[in-house]
Amino acid sequence: WIHDGKYEIRDASYLLGLDCDDTHTLIREELADPRVRVACIGPAGEKMVRFAGIFTDRRACGRGGAGAVMGSKNLKAIAIRGHKEVQPFDKEAFSEAVREQVKAYQSHPSFENFSQTGTQIAEFTNVLGMFPTKNFREGVVPNWNLIEGSEFNKIRVRKTRCFSCMVHCGNISKISTGRFAGHWSEGPEYETIWAFTGPVGVADIGLTVAADKLCDDLGLDTISTGNAIGFAYELFERGIITKADTDGLELRFGNNEPVIELIRKIAYREGFGDLLAEGVREAARRIGKGAEAYAIHVKGLELPAYDPRGAKAHGLNLLTSNIGADHNTGYAGQEIFGIPIPKQYDRFAIEGKGELTKWNQDVTALFETGILCSFIPSMMMLPVEVYGKLLSSATGIEEFRDPQYLWLVGERIFNLERMFNVREGFGKKDDVFPRRLKEEPMPEGPSKGRVFEEEPLREDYYRARGWDIETGIPTEKKLKELGLEFTVKK
Amino acid sequence: WIHDGKYEIRDASYLLGLDCDDTHTLIREELADPRVRVACIGPAGEKMVRFAGIFTDRRACGRGGAGAVMGSKNLKAIAIRGHKEVQPFDKEAFSEAVREQVKAYQSHPSFENFSQTGTQIAEFTNVLGMFPTKNFREGVVPNWNLIEGSEFNKIRVRKTRCFSCMVHCGNISKISTGRFAGHWSEGPEYETIWAFTGPVGVADIGLTVAADKLCDDLGLDTISTGNAIGFAYELFERGIITKADTDGLELRFGNNEPVIELIRKIAYREGFGDLLAEGVREAARRIGKGAEAYAIHVKGLELPAYDPRGAKAHGLNLLTSNIGADHNTGYAGQEIFGIPIPKQYDRFAIEGKGELTKWNQDVTALFETGILCSFIPSMMMLPVEVYGKLLSSATGIEEFRDPQYLWLVGERIFNLERMFNVREGFGKKDDVFPRRLKEEPMPEGPSKGRVFEEEPLREDYYRARGWDIETGIPTEKKLKELGLEFTVKK
Repeated sequence: WIHDGKYEIRDASYLLGLDCDDTHTLIREELADPRVRVACIGPAGEKMVRFAGIFTDRRACGRGGAGAVMGSKNLKAIAIRGHKEVQPFDKEAFSEAVREQVKAYQSHPSFENFSQTGTQIAEFTNVLGMFPTKNFREGVVPNWNLIEGSEFNKIRVRKTRCFSCMVHCGNISKISTGRFAGHWSEGPEYETIWAFTGPVGVADIGLTVAADKLCDDLGLDTISTGNAIGFAYELFERGIITKADTDGLELRFGNNEPVIELIRKIAYREGFGDLLAEGVREAARRIGKGAEAYAIHVKGLELPAYDPRGAKAHGLNLLTSNIGADHNTGYAGQEIFGIPIPKQYDRFAIEGKGELTKWNQDVTALFETGILCSFIPSMMMLPVEVYGKLLSSATGIEEFRDPQYLWLVGERIFNLERMFNVREGFGKKDDVFPRRLKEEPMPEGPSKGRVFEEEPLREDYYRARGWDIETGIPTEKKLKELGLEFTVKK
Repeated sequence: WIHDGKYEIRDASYLLGLDCDDTHTLIREELADPRVRVACIGPAGEKMVRFAGIFTDRRACGRGGAGAVMGSKNLKAIAIRGHKEVQPFDKEAFSEAVREQVKAYQSHPSFENFSQTGTQIAEFTNVLGMFPTKNFREGVVPNWNLIEGSEFNKIRVRKTRCFSCMVHCGNISKISTGRFAGHWSEGPEYETIWAFTGPVGVADIGLTVAADKLCDDLGLDTISTGNAIGFAYELFERGIITKADTDGLELRFGNNEPVIELIRKIAYREGFGDLLAEGVREAARRIGKGAEAYAIHVKGLELPAYDPRGAKAHGLNLLTSNIGADHNTGYAGQEIFGIPIPKQYDRFAIEGKGELTKWNQDVTALFETGILCSFIPSMMMLPVEVYGKLLSSATGIEEFRDPQYLWLVGERIFNLERMFNVREGFGKKDDVFPRRLKEEPMPEGPSKGRVFEEEPLREDYYRARGWDIETGIPTEKKLKELGLEFTVKK
């Protein structure tokens, strides 16, 4: 409980087992202040599910298991309330920069569409044939028109937004017919729409809304949850696991009936869910019998809703992102949306993708220093120059006015993270995709016949990064250039 | 949406089907003000369940089906926010009266206990042998020690209170073991503890917490819900209804397994629940086959957690309350708690109970004019004189200083309500209990052998009220005395 510069550690035992929504409500009541902000974990975090997230008003810090970390520290929630005003260093210059920012957003070609529909657009990756289907066996989910943007327009009941944002890309969706009538959620966002349709091979808008809310309540990352479910389905179909392993659930692609029950089981680590709660890498290791081939992850983090075979720089980012297969670390908007910044790219081409991936990762890192939305870099909504004006007028640090310096900051951040990983034993051996993505050509659809050419792409990337091609470790020369010599073990 | 003297009617179609908690959250988000207060209905109100309530932050306006009225008007919620200060007429005198009020509360013999445990005390009526069990067949539930105050002390995780109240009799309870581990609720209050234990004959603290929360979420009055469930159990045991009627549910006293499912069915009017959603009177009428004998209600309102055979003035109030069998209209604290105001009474005696019931009803009516908590009159926590000082200093109306005037106000209110009922066709024929309470002596326990002597008690009451003994209608003399001549049809 952090308030106006003071902090206090409070007994939260009465909140144990409560879902994220209830936790928010009761904390605000306990503190008798409805404006308190809360970051909490749900039952999944308490149970240290490896892909439990941290939740704030139904918004998730989903990936990488931060919720499990809180759970391991017996930390149910952090509540924050401040009353002081935020004072930028140079108020006038800051206001001027904000005006430029607003103008940049408004004049962005995607602004209107993004503002109206948000990320609820499963069509764009299905059209590209890279919507991972049936545990990444295929690239198009049948009847994807049932989960495209126009369908979500029909069930949207309200727009939402993050604090003070003019884009308001968020949505509240509500199902009014069928099995899930009455279910609603904030979202689902693109990744979640995928997570409960692609992996099981059924484009069911009702289930995806219900599953989204359930994951928000129980405190689960939807991406890893959906990926783990698809993994289980494939093992079941291949006979690697049977009903004896799945608590009697019949996991057949094309039947999404067991999904809700699986989510619950994972969150509470009940029966079969306890195994899936370990994530696909560890679950595969425990199962054995060749299950590892079907665990679609990088560095233990399950892949999101993009098949790397359909977009090579996007794939290269998933391969090399410092937290594992994370699409937000260096989104290749050039390949997915055709954004021509820094220039146009062919999504299947190999050439230049190392350099492009570096560019995407560094620009993300530099925008994240200001805790800006990750859509800013992925959709190139704000020139780096304007961002620099915001930073310098807010902080008084003149260097931020220089875009070259900002790029250096971005690159330095990414390399510092890499060196952290190197210290922990990571390297080239961990920048690898599961066999399927490299050796099984996409069987059908607009990405038919494509594989991910891991070897040449990775080498190109290491070269662009100035890293050693044999080990994947930043060279001393590069580290010196970035002022990161201190990261080298003596 | 009422705010600072303005009002606005907003489209709430996106809230349809949402539970009460979610409705609160989304309205506060829509209005971008977390301090907005909300009074809303849940799915049960939308479906016009006859005993649906109106809910504000998990507090229920439960009895009488006000939620169904909102539902019938297509009104999902009322949101209110004001910013003006409340100014009492005479600030100094008001503060002085408040000090007297605080002193009166603090010096009340029950203050400490009530403040610590609230109403979570199922022991007091079990000890009196009037805890209605198995649809009012018995007066003691087996193993009631499992739901007594000390058990709730163990599962209490926090105290709560209404705005600004110093008593904070509210509780948040959470179950940590067994079938309902992880379930929590605000409450359950005494009536709710009864509603999901007595009617089915099982003292299960876990179920009562889970059922309480479910009713709060779905928007149901717990008393009528529990009563309706006990009614269904009895019909099932007697073979009046069978599994063919109950959607396959086996309703046997001593087995509370079907309760949660029944609550859900009632709220959504699914299958058998659609019938129970009509309340016991109407459900019995539709079922026929003598079911009416087991419908425990007055004027269509299901009886609460007090068997009238064990406390005659308390029963007389249930019999004559203007909204049907409501314990809050004229609670006989003299019989239940032994409160010696206006004097001591034997709970089984008939003598003087007409006068006492009038006293209890009028004192409740007069305290309700100030929208005070109904525990004030039922536990006699505040002298009428002090209340008068509060009212007069707040409003500037001098008459309120005179206790005689306040008593007149109370009596006038009660008679005005009665005349409203008379106009709608109510009379002596509606001041009746079901046969069981009058003809079946309590079989066991501390109230063994007792019946409710309806005829003499009612006559005594009418006499005390100055009503016609044959018709139960206030005499013209009485109405004139109260200034209510205008209520008589010409």
